[in-house]
Amino acid sequence: MRDCGTVALGIGDDAAIIKTTPNTVVCTDLLAEGTHFIVTDDNSLHLAGRKSLAVNLSDIAAMGAVPKTAFLSLLLNRKNALHAAKCITLGLLRLAQDFQVSLAGGDTCCWDGATVINVTLTGDLIQSQPILRSTAQPGDAIVVSGSLGGSLLGKHLTFEPRCHAIEKILEYTSLHSMTDISDGLACDLNSILRPSNVGATIDAKAIPISTDAQSGHPILNAITFPVNAKGSPDWTANRPLAHSLYDGEDFELLFTLPFDQATGLIDGVHHRKLDLGCDLWIIGTVQEEKGLRLKYQDQIFDLPAGGYQH
Amino acid sequence: MRDCGTVALGIGDDAAIIKTTPNTVVCTDLLAEGTHFIVTDDNSLHLAGRKSLAVNLSDIAAMGAVPKTAFLSLLLNRKNALHAAKCITLGLLRLAQDFQVSLAGGDTCCWDGATVINVTLTGDLIQSQPILRSTAQPGDAIVVSGSLGGSLLGKHLTFEPRCHAIEKILEYTSLHSMTDISDGLACDLNSILRPSNVGATIDAKAIPISTDAQSGHPILNAITFPVNAKGSPDWTANRPLAHSLYDGEDFELLFTLPFDQATGLIDGVHHRKLDLGCDLWIIGTVQEEKGLRLKYQDQIFDLPAGGYQH
Repeated sequence: MRDCGTVALGIGDDAAIIKTTPNTVVCTDLLAEGTHFIVTDDNSLHLAGRKSLAVNLSDIAAMGAVPKTAFLSLLLNRKNALHAAKCITLGLLRLAQDFQVSLAGGDTCCWDGATVINVTLTGDLIQSQPILRSTAQPGDAIVVSGSLGGSLLGKHLTFEPRCHAIEKILEYTSLHSMTDISDGLACDLNSILRPSNVGATIDAKAIPISTDAQSGHPILNAITFPVNAKGSPDWTANRPLAHSLYDGEDFELLFTLPFDQATGLIDGVHHRKLDLGCDLWIIGTVQEEKGLRLKYQDQIFDLPAGGYQH
Repeated sequence: MRDCGTVALGIGDDAAIIKTTPNTVVCTDLLAEGTHFIVTDDNSLHLAGRKSLAVNLSDIAAMGAVPKTAFLSLLLNRKNALHAAKCITLGLLRLAQDFQVSLAGGDTCCWDGATVINVTLTGDLIQSQPILRSTAQPGDAIVVSGSLGGSLLGKHLTFEPRCHAIEKILEYTSLHSMTDISDGLACDLNSILRPSNVGATIDAKAIPISTDAQSGHPILNAITFPVNAKGSPDWTANRPLAHSLYDGEDFELLFTLPFDQATGLIDGVHHRKLDLGCDLWIIGTVQEEKGLRLKYQDQIFDLPAGGYQH
């Protein structure tokens, strides 16, 4: 068989053959026009192709793995299929190059409907074990890798998957649990807490709220936030905070680890000993008491479940 | 990590972890409502789910591999999403069970459009090397695993992927080249001949034409066949033959191997020493002279390229 990095046999036969380690990490994500991206011009197609890989890169990073090979399925409107295929693939390949990912195969079909892109991505574990959602421990610090909220203004298309960051982080420490923020901090933190049988309190003042979330841009006005029957913060008085909790598609890493290791890691970043390409923030603590709580203006609120509905 | 056959970590985290051999075969196929299947009732959704896996099983078989783990992406109309997801997944899982395939992960999204299904399937090679399209040799017999044509009447949804057959065939012999018939015998045989730098002549009388292709069903009347400027058989006088050459979606195996091995294999099937679950037919010979020719009514025609357009 031919030998091209991790791809033993690439595009051109009935299937590809990829070189794998005994435990291969695999994720798949589907993006639909009008739901996950909008097509206006060539650049919007590039960005859609970029995003189709980027969301999978974020999933692979969130397992504690490095990405390896991608498979791209395209469903294109027949009026503009060839041009759209080129633009989408170009956007994907540019990002693939940044992360040494090989495009090993795929499928292309035409129809009269909107554009649909599916990417399947494989990866190899960085450490011997994956970093799961279900293994957070009481006392852990909760850390995020970037500022949150308002991604609809552009970050949902242009975000930097935290693949390089997680490789460096795992050189220094072992994390207890991890996911990436795709549905919103509140929702994704719950996806760690529930399977781990633990709870948490996060501190509103510690959450890195993005400048986009603070912009008051009219495009964000349509977003509504869940409320709790037992009382929630007044979201209308602090929409940027609500955006950081509920908007989703931030694609930042969200992980937990012992407090001393978290502070050590952040010291390394702040003193420029450790260049992750992003900052890290401790936003709260994992606790034995189940449920997700928010410390806000010296009160503790039960955070209602919710997340961005595409 | 948990241990469930080939799936070390299944649905529920950011990605799955599958146990793999050093060379993992991977294929992916996307099916769209209105193009690859039509939704009328629950059964049509079952069949769509079945087909989404079956087309990938056929690809994995055509590499000389056994299927292992599947990943399912669903894009569903939000009006009926949960019910459609259940029906499609059920159809897929029933077929998966027949071939010991594990559903290891996936993605589900909703929109206002038609149903889209993408399946990515991994497999392990049966022999040390894959059976490629590009390695046919002059003198090889050309063999198909079932009757061809008219699949639009139902076989395109209900066909039996030839996974068990190829496992048994590769116990007895090594094939020179192989693909599966998805775009039509003429098109898919060309996809072997061209990369192999060879040609072939097939014998119209030797092609197993399905009863569906011979049915004269009105649904098949809309299919048109390519003609060759230098002269083609009169397809209107023999539409069943044309269907067997051009309809596509037969999902039978198409392979080449030395003649004596082909006759030995077929003897084994005919004398019931070898139960493949299908019959085998030698339909022609690989030749040094490039191009694909059809022997029909004692004449040799250059077969025009073409295949089913969804």
